[in-house]
Amino acid sequence: MYPASRLADVQEATARSGLGALLLTPGPDLRYVSGYDALPLERLTCLAIPAEGAPFMLVPRLELPAAQHSPAGGLDLELVPWDETDDPYALVASRLPGVEKVGLADRMWAMQSLRLRAAMPGAEQVLAGTVLRELRMRKSPAEVAALREAGAAIDAVHRQVPLFLKAGRTEREVGRDIADAIIAAGHSTVDFVIVGSGPNAASPHHELSDRVIEPGDVVVVDIGGVMPSGYCSDCTRTYAVGEAPADFLEYYEVLRRAQDAACAAVRPGVASEDVDRAARDIIAGAGYGELFIHRTGHGIGLETHEEPYIVAGNREPLEPGHAFSVEPGIYVSGRHGARIEDIVVCTEDGGERLNNESRELVVVEA
Amino acid sequence: MYPASRLADVQEATARSGLGALLLTPGPDLRYVSGYDALPLERLTCLAIPAEGAPFMLVPRLELPAAQHSPAGGLDLELVPWDETDDPYALVASRLPGVEKVGLADRMWAMQSLRLRAAMPGAEQVLAGTVLRELRMRKSPAEVAALREAGAAIDAVHRQVPLFLKAGRTEREVGRDIADAIIAAGHSTVDFVIVGSGPNAASPHHELSDRVIEPGDVVVVDIGGVMPSGYCSDCTRTYAVGEAPADFLEYYEVLRRAQDAACAAVRPGVASEDVDRAARDIIAGAGYGELFIHRTGHGIGLETHEEPYIVAGNREPLEPGHAFSVEPGIYVSGRHGARIEDIVVCTEDGGERLNNESRELVVVEA
Repeated sequence: MYPASRLADVQEATARSGLGALLLTPGPDLRYVSGYDALPLERLTCLAIPAEGAPFMLVPRLELPAAQHSPAGGLDLELVPWDETDDPYALVASRLPGVEKVGLADRMWAMQSLRLRAAMPGAEQVLAGTVLRELRMRKSPAEVAALREAGAAIDAVHRQVPLFLKAGRTEREVGRDIADAIIAAGHSTVDFVIVGSGPNAASPHHELSDRVIEPGDVVVVDIGGVMPSGYCSDCTRTYAVGEAPADFLEYYEVLRRAQDAACAAVRPGVASEDVDRAARDIIAGAGYGELFIHRTGHGIGLETHEEPYIVAGNREPLEPGHAFSVEPGIYVSGRHGARIEDIVVCTEDGGERLNNESRELVVVEA
Repeated sequence: MYPASRLADVQEATARSGLGALLLTPGPDLRYVSGYDALPLERLTCLAIPAEGAPFMLVPRLELPAAQHSPAGGLDLELVPWDETDDPYALVASRLPGVEKVGLADRMWAMQSLRLRAAMPGAEQVLAGTVLRELRMRKSPAEVAALREAGAAIDAVHRQVPLFLKAGRTEREVGRDIADAIIAAGHSTVDFVIVGSGPNAASPHHELSDRVIEPGDVVVVDIGGVMPSGYCSDCTRTYAVGEAPADFLEYYEVLRRAQDAACAAVRPGVASEDVDRAARDIIAGAGYGELFIHRTGHGIGLETHEEPYIVAGNREPLEPGHAFSVEPGIYVSGRHGARIEDIVVCTEDGGERLNNESRELVVVEA
């Protein structure tokens, strides 16, 4: 997952982009480049990758053992510990004299970016994403394998959902069982658990409530976690508890076709927005266009939501290795809703779905 | 916890500080001001508090129900939903014409702060902390009550640690039981679980390993979680599995006296660094100064680590309502270590410890 060559590749890309240095604080950018899953602390940890010269990583002295034991400890990378009364921002600046443009980790906190600006007043700040986004979007075979493993793990959880989902239980009770199953399936952490039952199914970002699930409910179950590799899972299936309403069954079939069509549209050179349009055209054509109230998907990797976004206006062409969700939905406010989501990776000549449980409506006993 | 007056208080403080507006993205600053515990998404959620005029909060349309159901929904605050293809940064800028200085949430991501800068090129960016730090440091009686409740919850977990901690078990096994107990004691989430046994006790930020605990080990257990209120717990006790080494017992008594002295030093007007010095002088006086390798403490509230920091160089005087950890430690590299930590809140005439389990060495059966 962390080829030793990555740091050198990133340094080369930094130089090519005309940046003087990348400055990466804890988060997905740092983990991608160094393999170090550092804690997000107020004490500054900062990997500096100058366009020229040796990369180094400033770490609070207390975190030195953690950094050394991480994959970053095995890289050709100087670890520079700083002490409780040092000024780490001044230390970074003193080692990067004359740098005119720095790329900051996309998730760097303002308390850090503004202090870095004060310490390096001559350096224009841009996002590290300008260098890293292309690299991070194009997943390597090892990264695709990690996402495939994550997909299989969350599929295993969906297979168990019919055991948890019963009329008379609350969303929260079902959600707790699902969270346990996410960990049992091999994830390190639970990222999110959405159990939207009845009218809550119509709210795409509903999470869990104390609503008691009733016979005849439709339930949207959208779940994900983070694997020990750092790569994320994310998969949605829609369930019916007993007999679902007729109008729901009608649009569910439309949704299934739309999701299939969007997945089938994936191949190199197709614009992200065209995948969105493939789903949207079918839903709109069946008269439900106003009820599909969100984009079709988001990239996934070390973050659950990252580039590329599958949304109108994103004309960037897909490339082999791009990995993202395809998750159209139809939502009838106050009544019910449905969403079907798979992670899809763009291959040399099409798309590979990383989630493979049935997309038919799963009917559980009422 | 979220008095309706807080938003008005913050707006007044913003005007007094000479800022044109505060811009708060999801995180502790936003939660403090509005009670909204928003998800940290790539889609922009941003509470804007102009020095003059009505505050408003931009929210992705998908998050509108979550925002409405949060305490923010009950405030005199316009919620402005934006759609998938809108530019939310331009929307914020268009509503704040002529603003010359904005305060950004201390944890705002660079991908947001740099886009806001591009959208508002005339506005100097500073930290929202310049307005909020005084308010957030000085805990209200309701906030102190929330921290007291968090303290009682983590104390309940420490009372159970002797049941979990046995020779022959791994740190990870013990840590899993502790994590379950943290939730069972009323926390919403586990923040961190450090079980540092034997030589790992000498590494203050060690977390969990597969090391098997042995008779004669000393074990540092430093644990915390987040309560439903959002307020955090954090408490360390040191345990001995059977008979601890004689040299350890000697310095443990020194540490206990040092932690007591630092707690006793807390009262309004005393500088933070003097609380640090109270502990450090005793440890150094007994010849262990080099082995106390970190600051004495950190503020706590909606963040586990926040201001005030109890560290040499911080001359700011304590005030009633300041809440922070007092956690000196002594670490003998490669052999063992100890730390004792309580959360202490500065009162009108002294300090109140919010953790009250015995600070004597707890000896569990080997």
